[in-house]
Amino acid sequence: MKRRVAVLGATGIVGQRFVQFLADHPWFELELVMASERSAGKIYAQAVTWVLEKPIPKKAYELKLYPIDIDLVAKEKIDIVFTALPADVAKELEPQLAKKGIIVVSNASSMRLESDVPLLNPEVNADHVDAIEVQRRNRGWSGAIVKVPNCTTAIATLSLKPLVDVFGVGKVIVSTMQALSGAGLTGVPSMFILDNLIPYIEGEEEKVENESRKILGIFNGNNIEFNKEISVTASCHRVMVLEGHTEAIFAELKSKTSMDEIIKVMEEFKSNKIKNMGLPTAPEKPIVVRREIDRPQPRLDRLEGNGMSIVVGRVREDKTLNGVKYVVLGHNTIRGAAGTGVLIAELLVKKGYA
Amino acid sequence: MKRRVAVLGATGIVGQRFVQFLADHPWFELELVMASERSAGKIYAQAVTWVLEKPIPKKAYELKLYPIDIDLVAKEKIDIVFTALPADVAKELEPQLAKKGIIVVSNASSMRLESDVPLLNPEVNADHVDAIEVQRRNRGWSGAIVKVPNCTTAIATLSLKPLVDVFGVGKVIVSTMQALSGAGLTGVPSMFILDNLIPYIEGEEEKVENESRKILGIFNGNNIEFNKEISVTASCHRVMVLEGHTEAIFAELKSKTSMDEIIKVMEEFKSNKIKNMGLPTAPEKPIVVRREIDRPQPRLDRLEGNGMSIVVGRVREDKTLNGVKYVVLGHNTIRGAAGTGVLIAELLVKKGYA
Amino acid sequence: MKRRVAVLGATGIVGQRFVQFLADHPWFELELVMASERSAGKIYAQAVTWVLEKPIPKKAYELKLYPIDIDLVAKEKIDIVFTALPADVAKELEPQLAKKGIIVVSNASSMRLESDVPLLNPEVNADHVDAIEVQRRNRGWSGAIVKVPNCTTAIATLSLKPLVDVFGVGKVIVSTMQALSGAGLTGVPSMFILDNLIPYIEGEEEKVENESRKILGIFNGNNIEFNKEISVTASCHRVMVLEGHTEAIFAELKSKTSMDEIIKVMEEFKSNKIKNMGLPTAPEKPIVVRREIDRPQPRLDRLEGNGMSIVVGRVREDKTLNGVKYVVLGHNTIRGAAGTGVLIAELLVKKGYA
Amino acid sequence: MKRRVAVLGATGIVGQRFVQFLADHPWFELELVMASERSAGKIYAQAVTWVLEKPIPKKAYELKLYPIDIDLVAKEKIDIVFTALPADVAKELEPQLAKKGIIVVSNASSMRLESDVPLLNPEVNADHVDAIEVQRRNRGWSGAIVKVPNCTTAIATLSLKPLVDVFGVGKVIVSTMQALSGAGLTGVPSMFILDNLIPYIEGEEEKVENESRKILGIFNGNNIEFNKEISVTASCHRVMVLEGHTEAIFAELKSKTSMDEIIKVMEEFKSNKIKNMGLPTAPEKPIVVRREIDRPQPRLDRLEGNGMSIVVGRVREDKTLNGVKYVVLGHNTIRGAAGTGVLIAELLVKKGYA
Repeated sequence: MKRRVAVLGATGIVGQRFVQFLADHPWFELELVMASERSAGKIYAQAVTWVLEKPIPKKAYELKLYPIDIDLVAKEKIDIVFTALPADVAKELEPQLAKKGIIVVSNASSMRLESDVPLLNPEVNADHVDAIEVQRRNRGWSGAIVKVPNCTTAIATLSLKPLVDVFGVGKVIVSTMQALSGAGLTGVPSMFILDNLIPYIEGEEEKVENESRKILGIFNGNNIEFNKEISVTASCHRVMVLEGHTEAIFAELKSKTSMDEIIKVMEEFKSNKIKNMGLPTAPEKPIVVRREIDRPQPRLDRLEGNGMSIVVGRVREDKTLNGVKYVVLGHNTIRGAAGTGVLIAELLVKKGYA
Repeated sequence: MKRRVAVLGATGIVGQRFVQFLADHPWFELELVMASERSAGKIYAQAVTWVLEKPIPKKAYELKLYPIDIDLVAKEKIDIVFTALPADVAKELEPQLAKKGIIVVSNASSMRLESDVPLLNPEVNADHVDAIEVQRRNRGWSGAIVKVPNCTTAIATLSLKPLVDVFGVGKVIVSTMQALSGAGLTGVPSMFILDNLIPYIEGEEEKVENESRKILGIFNGNNIEFNKEISVTASCHRVMVLEGHTEAIFAELKSKTSMDEIIKVMEEFKSNKIKNMGLPTAPEKPIVVRREIDRPQPRLDRLEGNGMSIVVGRVREDKTLNGVKYVVLGHNTIRGAAGTGVLIAELLVKKGYA
Repeated sequence: MKRRVAVLGATGIVGQRFVQFLADHPWFELELVMASERSAGKIYAQAVTWVLEKPIPKKAYELKLYPIDIDLVAKEKIDIVFTALPADVAKELEPQLAKKGIIVVSNASSMRLESDVPLLNPEVNADHVDAIEVQRRNRGWSGAIVKVPNCTTAIATLSLKPLVDVFGVGKVIVSTMQALSGAGLTGVPSMFILDNLIPYIEGEEEKVENESRKILGIFNGNNIEFNKEISVTASCHRVMVLEGHTEAIFAELKSKTSMDEIIKVMEEFKSNKIKNMGLPTAPEKPIVVRREIDRPQPRLDRLEGNGMSIVVGRVREDKTLNGVKYVVLGHNTIRGAAGTGVLIAELLVKKGYA
Repeated sequence: MKRRVAVLGATGIVGQRFVQFLADHPWFELELVMASERSAGKIYAQAVTWVLEKPIPKKAYELKLYPIDIDLVAKEKIDIVFTALPADVAKELEPQLAKKGIIVVSNASSMRLESDVPLLNPEVNADHVDAIEVQRRNRGWSGAIVKVPNCTTAIATLSLKPLVDVFGVGKVIVSTMQALSGAGLTGVPSMFILDNLIPYIEGEEEKVENESRKILGIFNGNNIEFNKEISVTASCHRVMVLEGHTEAIFAELKSKTSMDEIIKVMEEFKSNKIKNMGLPTAPEKPIVVRREIDRPQPRLDRLEGNGMSIVVGRVREDKTLNGVKYVVLGHNTIRGAAGTGVLIAELLVKKGYA
């Protein structure tokens, strides 16, 4: 039987992606869309400024848009809520939903670093999901809150995971060229970015540096321990690209290897944490490695694996760091937000949490 | 008396900048412009596809454009030749000019790493200029070849120089977002870069890694020794910006310091190598540090100091590298090419080499 | 049985669209791809700089790319050749193919205005196809040449056809904002168009003005008569959009009507010339009319009807011209080139010409 | 003695241009800058998000920014107020200023069509300025309100004026490609316009159609009569250009002429209405005609005549309209707003109204 799901914050750009992934999902039925007061009362298609590459799914077109309302969520017997809300709103609201027995899959940055809150990038750390049990014990909830990582971090950690497992990773430098969609529908005025770039994204660098160590850490049965071997430093920049974050990554490796070997472990990294689970949104190849000298490129590669694969290119030796440098691209509102959110929800269903 | 100067490769984008800087120069008289056969015979204004922000200087407008011709350069009694030629053409041609007693200030990458060829970023290593004497001895030339550094490298090394001098620098990671103009007038088709970026620039990373160590090295009277303390690794990317290269730099520092101190040494770095020389193209402040959270930005900051200043921002501690990270912007065809070329020529005049 | 087809000029942007539409076509088998000498010998995927929104079709991936060779086309028993060649090459080559009994569906501008050469925009003038018989008689060919209209013209005439039929049309003013892809893969350097537009496209205005009158004319059994009532004037401009030509059209109408009536005849214009033929590439609605105040927009609307529908918006009264003004958008390399080419070929099959 | 002037709405993009033109003006002293409550209290440089191509003028840098306050304007004995306010705010506020004896040069659209309010494009209709006397009589004001035309209209009417005078003009079709700056600093989100265009600008077409007839009309001593011969229809579109509106204009001419003759009257149109007045902001050539096939282009031509000249190109015969078609470019926030505002104020001083 299909789970009844809702999207909170359904008109923003991540909300649109949630709606796109959920409208025709085999396991989920999109029952409810909510957004700010301003657009409430309209039907979804009228209220949203839709910007995705494909039209609004037919099932979502006529959905009535409600203002954010926890009681209505409960009354509608929603099993899973997907949130794309501002962090301060989410911080207040999500615990109330969890208390009411609802599973919250949240794209908001609040609570991401708390040790009993799974911060899931499923192919990397699906096993952290069991921290839900600790969370329920700690907080007395019948529902749960699970967090989607920051977009840049989701992409970076998926590319780093096979290196961490096989060679060990120490220092990591991440320099990003991030898409406009990451700032939301109206976040970056065109007068500010045309023939320009903006070398600052609020809070982003700290998120990459901290969340990476949690995602690449270990759940020890009681809490999630941050990875202590790895040390990440980031510089984050906005460029004139619609969708797709590109990251230049430089990583110190603990053991010597060849570039061919690195490419091999990346290509063979087959979603090990969720292997054979049959999750519908899991891409066949989480990491695609391209050999062309000038790839990955956002416009050409961002929809690889339906937007759920990351694309790595330019794998080359880094003598300064005794390691490797490469470029990785991921779709920021799919792999880095809504797509991973839906994949998490599928994992929760499979593991019996939802 | 004004030096008689020529520009070879005068119709390309660096050639246009040379013409712009030389047409009304107090020390130089632009006598001759040369370009490929195709446009020869026309007047400059007809042959060039001018793309700079100001119109063609009046003095250059009617200059007759000649095909590349060494004999004509000699016959016209040119003192200094500025070249913006492809590396393979330059490699052949520049030594012949030097042999004929002409001073060549070259933007081409050929010969940049040879130990008797000054690779000058004047505020950083003006003292390397005396390698000209070794060069003349070695090669039996009465003229000389002096090289302008790679654009990305010129910007990076100027920002690093005060750190190298005051704190010592070890590992350096450079990740760039480079302007379209660096690829020349027609180098990047719009179909390839709109809503996109290209994470590869041929030969660029090697240039940054190698030239940096030469520029930050020492001329010992016999040859130029590369800096052995510093180790640079680069990842270079093209973004949709007309002019101005932005670089995220992460640097390991040999001694502990504060961010305030770092900003102070950068701001106080007053062209020490060319101080009080009165070179017309030298900017008052070679390094401008901005405190706003979201600067430097190429469209807003690239013309700082008439395009000859670099602009640093976002100076912050880097715990991963035990050092500092910051963003630096420089005008790639001025500070990174023609402007620095003209500044070099002024230095050569002042030092009696031209 | 499937027709055996070839694409000549298969690596350019229109060539890529032909390959995309033909690789999995129900009636056609893509047997042969040809391009310039330079890329010949490679497999298609290696030789092409693929820029479309979806990856290279699997069937085309490994096709061997040949140099243009008429004898090979004949030897391979190709039924239909789709050409995306420069006009001067096409002018020479296409008659030779027709002479050998091959059907040529050509995107080149040569011969478009000749009175025995069908210039087909199928929903508008499918009945002109019978000029093939005159052509064969006149020229002694067993094959035939059929022309795809200029991209801007294909879009404009489809939007005008219902107005011509129902109200009569006199003066027409067309002002365009055309996509970069119309200039080919490398036609517009990014340095020329970023923060800019180019108010000139070679030969385009004449094509719109002349071809429109032929497409909207009548085949009288002997030759194609140009429409004498209509008089078109055009101003054509290139803007920074990847795909999709937008046209502001102002039209004098011969009889008075309301805007609602105009919208109605556009929406009800159901491919009348090819109705019920079951052509696979024909869109369900050739003209889609949008009511939003700010549509059509190229990024959001260009793939309407798989790129084969045009999208009209902002239909409003024009008191200056005693008529109507509106904005129309069409996908220039699909509706305006390869898609219409394939639709023409389907018509030829249905009518027994191929 | 210099007039004391103020800018109301000084932080927006037109406000920035006013500040740029007034900070070092020979006849005006910029005494006061005002903006919304939000930024009041700060110094100008802190409050403004400056986006112009040159830095904030030194004189304006430290000016204190006040909230909009009519009493303060009066108290500071301001002679001339330049307003860049929303139309609804202006409608309320500007009459109050005029009542207090202050001269208001307004960029707001309110009152532009009233018959005793001069709508000035000085080279075109400087003689309409004397409607101020009627205005004062009608309304009992000691000050006055004078309006700057809509940006698109200012550019179009300047190009049309010599044609109206020499040949007579009937139907006019205007199709625009307008810059982002026209929508204000944050008016067009980058997610909406990248790889796109927006074929609608609120209220713009009506402004062009109506204001043109007033500007090209006659002041008969009692009121301003609209031009009845001319009939304008417009279609307005936003494209991805920072500054500079490009307009394709098609005009029916009352008498036959040659294209050479048209170019001649445009080039010889020497600000006839303000000839020999010595107004500092008047460009030497109000209309520059370029012969290149692909000009004007916004990035290359918008700063012609310090942004006060319009640039015409592609002058060609229009057989459909029995007239001419051409492309005209003007700087929308200079010629189309603040620059013309300052030119108007200079005219008012010269004529003794301020």
